Amino acid sequence: MRHESTGGKKMDDISVKVKHLEEKEEQRVQDDKADNDTAEEKLISADEHSQKPWQQSRSRIKVCVLQVKKLLVSFGSMEWYCYALLGIITALMSFFMDFTVAKLLNAHQWLYGCLKGHHLLQFLCWTLYPACLCALSTSFSHSICPFSAGSGVPEARAILLGMEMPDYLSLSNLFAKMFGLICTLAAGSTVFLGKVGPFVHLSIMVGAFMNRLHVSCHGGKQKASKGQMLVVASAVGVASCFGAPVSGVLFSIEVMGTHYSTRDYCPCFFAAACGAITFRLLSVCTRDQGNYIASELTMRQLLTSLLEGTSWYSISQNASALPEPQNTFWEAWNPPGRSYFQTLTFFIIAKVGLLVMACTLPLPAGYFMPVFVYGAAVGRLVGEGSAYLLADRISSAKSVINPGGYALAGAAAFSGAVTHTLSPALLALEMTGQCSHAVPALVATLVSNAVARAKHRPSFYDGISLIKKLPHLPSLIRARPQLANVQLKQFVIPAGFVLERNEALESTQHTLNLSTDPELPVVDSHECPVLLGTITRSELYECLLQHRNEDSGNRLEEVCSIRPLRLHLSPESTVKQAHCIMSVTGERCLFLTQNGLLCGIITWKEMKKIIEEMAEEL
Amino acid sequence: MRHESTGGKKMDDISVKVKHLEEKEEQRVQDDKADNDTAEEKLISADEHSQKPWQQSRSRIKVCVLQVKKLLVSFGSMEWYCYALLGIITALMSFFMDFTVAKLLNAHQWLYGCLKGHHLLQFLCWTLYPACLCALSTSFSHSICPFSAGSGVPEARAILLGMEMPDYLSLSNLFAKMFGLICTLAAGSTVFLGKVGPFVHLSIMVGAFMNRLHVSCHGGKQKASKGQMLVVASAVGVASCFGAPVSGVLFSIEVMGTHYSTRDYCPCFFAAACGAITFRLLSVCTRDQGNYIASELTMRQLLTSLLEGTSWYSISQNASALPEPQNTFWEAWNPPGRSYFQTLTFFIIAKVGLLVMACTLPLPAGYFMPVFVYGAAVGRLVGEGSAYLLADRISSAKSVINPGGYALAGAAAFSGAVTHTLSPALLALEMTGQCSHAVPALVATLVSNAVARAKHRPSFYDGISLIKKLPHLPSLIRARPQLANVQLKQFVIPAGFVLERNEALESTQHTLNLSTDPELPVVDSHECPVLLGTITRSELYECLLQHRNEDSGNRLEEVCSIRPLRLHLSPESTVKQAHCIMSVTGERCLFLTQNGLLCGIITWKEMKKIIEEMAEEL
Repeated sequence: MRHESTGGKKMDDISVKVKHLEEKEEQRVQDDKADNDTAEEKLISADEHSQKPWQQSRSRIKVCVLQVKKLLVSFGSMEWYCYALLGIITALMSFFMDFTVAKLLNAHQWLYGCLKGHHLLQFLCWTLYPACLCALSTSFSHSICPFSAGSGVPEARAILLGMEMPDYLSLSNLFAKMFGLICTLAAGSTVFLGKVGPFVHLSIMVGAFMNRLHVSCHGGKQKASKGQMLVVASAVGVASCFGAPVSGVLFSIEVMGTHYSTRDYCPCFFAAACGAITFRLLSVCTRDQGNYIASELTMRQLLTSLLEGTSWYSISQNASALPEPQNTFWEAWNPPGRSYFQTLTFFIIAKVGLLVMACTLPLPAGYFMPVFVYGAAVGRLVGEGSAYLLADRISSAKSVINPGGYALAGAAAFSGAVTHTLSPALLALEMTGQCSHAVPALVATLVSNAVARAKHRPSFYDGISLIKKLPHLPSLIRARPQLANVQLKQFVIPAGFVLERNEALESTQHTLNLSTDPELPVVDSHECPVLLGTITRSELYECLLQHRNEDSGNRLEEVCSIRPLRLHLSPESTVKQAHCIMSVTGERCLFLTQNGLLCGIITWKEMKKIIEEMAEEL
Repeated sequence: MRHESTGGKKMDDISVKVKHLEEKEEQRVQDDKADNDTAEEKLISADEHSQKPWQQSRSRIKVCVLQVKKLLVSFGSMEWYCYALLGIITALMSFFMDFTVAKLLNAHQWLYGCLKGHHLLQFLCWTLYPACLCALSTSFSHSICPFSAGSGVPEARAILLGMEMPDYLSLSNLFAKMFGLICTLAAGSTVFLGKVGPFVHLSIMVGAFMNRLHVSCHGGKQKASKGQMLVVASAVGVASCFGAPVSGVLFSIEVMGTHYSTRDYCPCFFAAACGAITFRLLSVCTRDQGNYIASELTMRQLLTSLLEGTSWYSISQNASALPEPQNTFWEAWNPPGRSYFQTLTFFIIAKVGLLVMACTLPLPAGYFMPVFVYGAAVGRLVGEGSAYLLADRISSAKSVINPGGYALAGAAAFSGAVTHTLSPALLALEMTGQCSHAVPALVATLVSNAVARAKHRPSFYDGISLIKKLPHLPSLIRARPQLANVQLKQFVIPAGFVLERNEALESTQHTLNLSTDPELPVVDSHECPVLLGTITRSELYECLLQHRNEDSGNRLEEVCSIRPLRLHLSPESTVKQAHCIMSVTGERCLFLTQNGLLCGIITWKEMKKIIEEMAEEL
């Protein structure tokens, strides 16, 4: 009797708790449902409640919009529209940035022109204007979002490998990086900083937002595709920067750590093509404006003048008949009193110092473009040198040697060597539209890569990763190869809440209350924890609901279905192996067993911590 | 005493067996060692035994060779030279093939010209010559190696995914395929078959041989790199066929099933560039020979004429002033009495039938090139049509509309749609060297791919894979998506020989004699087979040797180190998952556990059988 009453009390107690739990879960389900409401439903309900004018025409438009949406979805799934939108938005951003930078540079020129005659004012204008812009950019990055400084590619690589770094994908970072980058670029080519790296980072931020949009459209079901959207975004970044879709995709392949999922291949090309088309269309529309500044060339003009096909030697023989932009370029490289060899040599020597100094400034800036231009200058010097030397000996050398080709190969080789990538070879071709130098550029890039990668030297991006202690496993392993053999053993955390096979159903509820894990492991017994499988929170909750009115004899394994595990690791597995399996299979939580007994778990969060620890120790 | 004597007898028995085993193992080790002898050692030993003339100068040369080898290895590891050699050999093969085919086609023309006046003989020559060549090609493939028929790309895809199909990589197949392909191509463009697919297959065969060479240089240690060499070879195949390195690499990415290892990226580019350079250099050397056949255009000439930039409409207005090859092309497309529209339409209609018929012939032949040319013809028709229609209305349309660009986009789009790939877009650009049509070609390929892939339609290669019942999992899953959920449960084979933790060392020797597995699982006990780890054959053998003179009380776990397992699967894992993990991590044998108990193993061979069974059932 006493026993029964205790049992009865226990049952009451449990039913109260279950009721409490039930309410909590119902609240959660309702919340979820509310989130899941698609935009169209919200539109309708919002409209029903408020009495606004032109109701009939509004409802007609609504129906039209819904039909258009249905039609769109019938052609392809929503994510493809997201990819297209990603490409278009990034291209618009790139165009807007170029446009604003050009206006700011023009304003500088205009101001300089206005002050003619006042030498002191002119000097102040010439030095203070870029200095102010740099200061503005630094203060933007300092006060709004300190994570916006620098190139962003090392961080992007870590994010693409699955590391969660929300600071680097925030909205404030997007704005700080964008406006900071505009200021940096508007400071002109004296500061010698570029656009590519930050733009890839910006594009990945847009990608993260598109992913949130996509997930909210589907009610949170498609969370796994986040990585895909970010990989696509990294391709779009390069594509929209120059209108070069193929090298964008190659870049995204190179940026992926160890394995590129071929599933991302088509989306990458699609989004990159969308971005490149938008960028080119916008560039065509405003070509009549693309006017050159005589006294100081911008980064893009520097590059155009360096990659130009005509040999400066032949121009120097007949400089009077040059058309407009070429003439300006020629005058910039061949000022009165100095030969173009002197200018080029001075440029190469001076820019090394500037490049190193610019890298230390805490503002959003890219280092790819300066390196690319620097390589082009070195290549041009070699090309012009050989054209000059051989022109006296061979009469046809003038037409045979194309210093522009040397500049192209030099640009591709130098930027490829600094970043340890091959895509610059293709980027150089796509930028100039000249396929004839494809093989020399590729060969130069391969050779320079071979030299740069010899003896496991880290790349520029690897170096930044290591300095910033970013959780990027491949660069850590490249810097210290023995890290590839680090075993999980020392990092294992014990599995927090573990259910027993024969546990009474009531007692599991306590575990359910305490634990926050989405999945709970089930073992044979606590003494001999042979891992049998897992059970998810929601399944366990349903079980508890179904059997709450039955007698208390129910055992867990009798009433709930335990899902067997598909993959175990052991404490002897290496961190590299676990990281590879997690990123390839998309599993976010792996159980570790030793001799069949559960000895710990490893989650993706834990993995991030482990890699961060490794980076700290280095 | 009796006990002792039994023990003594047992020990004698064991020592005899161990001795036997020892001899066997020593023999094996010696065999291995003999294999491991590097080429230089063989050179020296062969020389020491035989007394040949000029011994001094020979030894000097030998020393030089060894020094060169040392120097080479100091620059980069041996495999990079293998990659370069792979590229160069494949390009030489491609060039040799083109050269022979051109000679055979010339011979046909010459014969036809000699028989002028004899109409019956001319007719017979015109029909019998290609028919004989086709028959020769078929008999080659029928009698020497039946596996040489067809394109080879579907088989190549399965091989790249790790399936072992030695029939498709044999030396006889290499020769049968090569000579068969020459005969097929020499039959002319009436048969309408191409070179790309078989060439990728040939290149993969060369890759397999290079891999054997590399392995024999390193004494069998580097067997894991086989897959890498084959991936590189698939890139080289496309690169050497057209001198197009970048699209070769993209092709190899597309051919990989699910994940492309970014480790292969650099070798792919390197080998593809080597191949492309060799192919281009050889092509440049023999350009003066590159003479056209008037009455019948070859595949390559068809393509050149279709992709030509000048609009045929403008040529038709002023046909008299054409230079040589263009004039020939123009006459071929615009014969007296018929307009070029009629010829083009007739070409498009007639070639559909020919293409379908050609696919059924059992000879080595590619289907990519015909599809590419066919797409170019369709594109040209559209381009010429719009040039003709708009020429009357807009005066500048003649210069605005470039039918060559339409042909390029058409070729890329059609071949991309048939094969479900995007690399044709880039291939078209690399072949023609025109970057200006990059974006239209890419967009056309993306759109045609979207249409072709809608509703999970299989590609042309998928179709052949399914018909031939090749063990290629991705195409099986594409044809029947529910196969992705097939669990390993039904295919599990019990682990053959299992060692017990407490087993006496002597009794393990029996297992060692019987089993052939390189790795033996160790369990807690046969009744409760909790999987503890594995022990390799050689380790176990060493243990036996070390402890053969000790008393018989030794237990396995006391004297041998059991290596813990790093990765388990369970019978509930899907075949797709196991396949993905095996191909990404390179494991060739996975143990399956359920509730910690060993319940079976799955080897790569078994995996191949499973996929073959799936293909049979489809």
